[in-house]
Amino acid sequence: MFTNQNLTLMTDLYQLTMMQGYYKYNKTEQRVVFDLFYRENPFHAAFAIAAGLEQAIDYVRHLTFTREDIEYLRTLNIFDDDFLAYLAEFRFTGDIDAVPEGTVVFPHEPLMRVSAPIIEAQLIETALLNIINHQSLIATKAARVVHAAKGNPVMEFGLRRAQGPDAGVLGARAAVIGGCIGTSNVLTAQLFDVAPKGTHSHSWVMSFDSELEAFRAYADLYPDMCILLVDTYDTLRSGVPNAIRVFQEMRDKGIKSKMYGIRLDSGDLAYLSIEAYKMLEAAGFGDAVISASSDLDEHLIRDLRHQGATINLWGVGTKLITAQDNPAFGGVYKLAAEEDKNGVMQPKIKLSNNPAKITNPGIKKILRIYDKATGFMKADLIALDDEVYDENKDLTIFHPIETWKRMTFKAGTYRIREVLTPIFRGGKCVYTSPTVNEIRDYCTAEKETLYRECRRLVNAQTVPVDLSQKLWDLKQEMMYHYGKSDL
Amino acid sequence: MFTNQNLTLMTDLYQLTMMQGYYKYNKTEQRVVFDLFYRENPFHAAFAIAAGLEQAIDYVRHLTFTREDIEYLRTLNIFDDDFLAYLAEFRFTGDIDAVPEGTVVFPHEPLMRVSAPIIEAQLIETALLNIINHQSLIATKAARVVHAAKGNPVMEFGLRRAQGPDAGVLGARAAVIGGCIGTSNVLTAQLFDVAPKGTHSHSWVMSFDSELEAFRAYADLYPDMCILLVDTYDTLRSGVPNAIRVFQEMRDKGIKSKMYGIRLDSGDLAYLSIEAYKMLEAAGFGDAVISASSDLDEHLIRDLRHQGATINLWGVGTKLITAQDNPAFGGVYKLAAEEDKNGVMQPKIKLSNNPAKITNPGIKKILRIYDKATGFMKADLIALDDEVYDENKDLTIFHPIETWKRMTFKAGTYRIREVLTPIFRGGKCVYTSPTVNEIRDYCTAEKETLYRECRRLVNAQTVPVDLSQKLWDLKQEMMYHYGKSDL
Repeated sequence: MFTNQNLTLMTDLYQLTMMQGYYKYNKTEQRVVFDLFYRENPFHAAFAIAAGLEQAIDYVRHLTFTREDIEYLRTLNIFDDDFLAYLAEFRFTGDIDAVPEGTVVFPHEPLMRVSAPIIEAQLIETALLNIINHQSLIATKAARVVHAAKGNPVMEFGLRRAQGPDAGVLGARAAVIGGCIGTSNVLTAQLFDVAPKGTHSHSWVMSFDSELEAFRAYADLYPDMCILLVDTYDTLRSGVPNAIRVFQEMRDKGIKSKMYGIRLDSGDLAYLSIEAYKMLEAAGFGDAVISASSDLDEHLIRDLRHQGATINLWGVGTKLITAQDNPAFGGVYKLAAEEDKNGVMQPKIKLSNNPAKITNPGIKKILRIYDKATGFMKADLIALDDEVYDENKDLTIFHPIETWKRMTFKAGTYRIREVLTPIFRGGKCVYTSPTVNEIRDYCTAEKETLYRECRRLVNAQTVPVDLSQKLWDLKQEMMYHYGKSDL
Repeated sequence: MFTNQNLTLMTDLYQLTMMQGYYKYNKTEQRVVFDLFYRENPFHAAFAIAAGLEQAIDYVRHLTFTREDIEYLRTLNIFDDDFLAYLAEFRFTGDIDAVPEGTVVFPHEPLMRVSAPIIEAQLIETALLNIINHQSLIATKAARVVHAAKGNPVMEFGLRRAQGPDAGVLGARAAVIGGCIGTSNVLTAQLFDVAPKGTHSHSWVMSFDSELEAFRAYADLYPDMCILLVDTYDTLRSGVPNAIRVFQEMRDKGIKSKMYGIRLDSGDLAYLSIEAYKMLEAAGFGDAVISASSDLDEHLIRDLRHQGATINLWGVGTKLITAQDNPAFGGVYKLAAEEDKNGVMQPKIKLSNNPAKITNPGIKKILRIYDKATGFMKADLIALDDEVYDENKDLTIFHPIETWKRMTFKAGTYRIREVLTPIFRGGKCVYTSPTVNEIRDYCTAEKETLYRECRRLVNAQTVPVDLSQKLWDLKQEMMYHYGKSDL
């Protein structure tokens, strides 16, 4: 599991061969700006949740080629001694800005902006994408699952099916950012100070001579977290009656449990939960937790709720921790500006036959526009970094393709927030990550600034993400200029 | 990235709460046997490739609760001092058998068999599943991609889209086991001594004043790995002609490149590769490498080949490293036997309404039956560990459900191989992992023992996996016995 580790060689070979090229052609000092952004929301959602920044910072802070790394690279017979000597002294010296973790983000917005000598900016592309892509994917999926649960708590249970240790440990971290109340993963709980959660498994029940004995033993040990798994033999004929008997015994002994109830892990969860609730309620245990876990995702949770399931605590595993219906977040890292021979930053554009793949040139920032009265997010504006806006003036924005679609915000009715935040300056980290629980709270507040229509699981309304007039003009000009040439 | 690290707390909380229960109820010494197996092949394939054993061994060897771990657990107010003192002394003391990495495996076969005190066997469930599930998934996917490429080499390129660092690094390891010739991931190459692979990106081309200049610079630096990315501006009008010009210049200078050619990363790969080949061939470069990378998977590679694409080197990223169409391998870990009060191992069974979920009871082994003349795999037989078979006698096996489907192998015409291998004995590792390249070679040989019909990408024939008469009888008896009771 990676945290506070040197992952400098966790990059694509071509970054190193290109770095040697930049070194040989004396480009070590040439500054560039790269944007890390994505083009399409996963899960057909209207937004994503940015996550992974803390680990990205860890990664950049620990960047250094050890002697062992240098010796390994030497064995490849690709790299010359002078370049290897340069690598031995390599440090990240650039600036990074990023959106804070837990922020609601949209396609084409820079989640991260790296301004550094090209040789440094190139090296870190792969690991930054790996870390941000992964955690943003899982945080976004978790936000959807939590949305479907409509206020019922959701726990992350997927470690055993995650794509390796980091996917389990950092995936659980991202799931908490997206809104889960805790995780079964003890290492994540320890590393990030979030709540560990869990009950017992079928093997606990099977290791006793009877289900009743197993339940009694568990209740004796853990009266305040007494969630009994009732489906080992027969949920309604054996599991629930035995659980009720144990709850009754606890009550008879005067034990007031902070949390007690049952867990369903198989079968028809709607039917079983409704019947179990009737039995619990009839015995005076109507406040018992009814938790469920069994290949759940946001769609199944929504369906179960629709069918009247009485489940009030959800454990979600495989489909959350792997983002099963969309297991890759398509973040990319593209050149936005480059220093010319006079040391002036010039915007760069990458054209494509596919208009959605044409990049936004120049050094940019994200301005988020809120309705002052309600606090709802009205739109995002991607602007050039040196543009100045005044909330005391009217603001008109327009759709970057269907430019006749315009919106005007009257002076005094709106509020602008700059979303990108300084993270590194001159190679020094200038940012302190909040705790994961703080990030989750921030993320919850973020999601609440979205109109309900944008939070839907299907057919969600999109939030306008427009370009400033100045950026739009620059992009048009560059497309026109380069589009005429040999492209 | 995890390797040689202590991941003891990377487990589900319920393993620890159950462990405390076993401790309190004096079950620390009771031995059990757990099987790690899966129920269904991913990707609708007819087989899977086992992988991850080396990391599973690393994990078990490093199992120990540090003082910091103990102090963390104490803060949860769930665990008593006596149990925490026990954990501080905890070591794995059991036996583990496993199928070697790279082995072709089938549903219901124990990939790993853990025989240990219940308190130890329970703890390691989660991490073993995490590690084996992940790498077996990616190795299996890689085997499919490599199969589609029909002898053309395949490179793993997915680090930036993997689900976190381990998914990238260990996923690339698994991809090589499944048959990839190398990976772009330098850390994987370093850690596991496999071939790092790569060329250059669009940003290399964009950082020069012209594409031709960028190509020349690259060819000067890397004449022996001179694969030029030709789609930055216009593949057929600019990229390929510029590449040919550079190849011609190299030839004029008398440079004999070990490897040169082009890479296509966008557009209609079938059309572009056919046209590029014509141009290269006409210029006397018919032996150039034509590599491609762009959201490839086994189905797209098969289609491209079907359409006559001239691609002869494949770079596969996102869809391999995330196993996009099936991103979780459904390995489970189930109780197979338990020591009774007299210290005798008794078989255990887990029943279910779903027959596919009923476990095979008892301590088992896997016997693989080969045709002596051809070397092809005829069937697997899951048998009880103490059964003895003699290749000099006829062997009849039968389908476990449709029992009238029988097959007899005549004495002398078949060969039996035991697939499970001792890994730990009394907590000591007794196994040395082969290198990753050795595992890949072994895996290639393994796949070649499968009939062609079993290797198909769709509608593959399954290999019979039968139960021995003795195991079948035991299972029937236990199902009959427990099926009558309150299940």
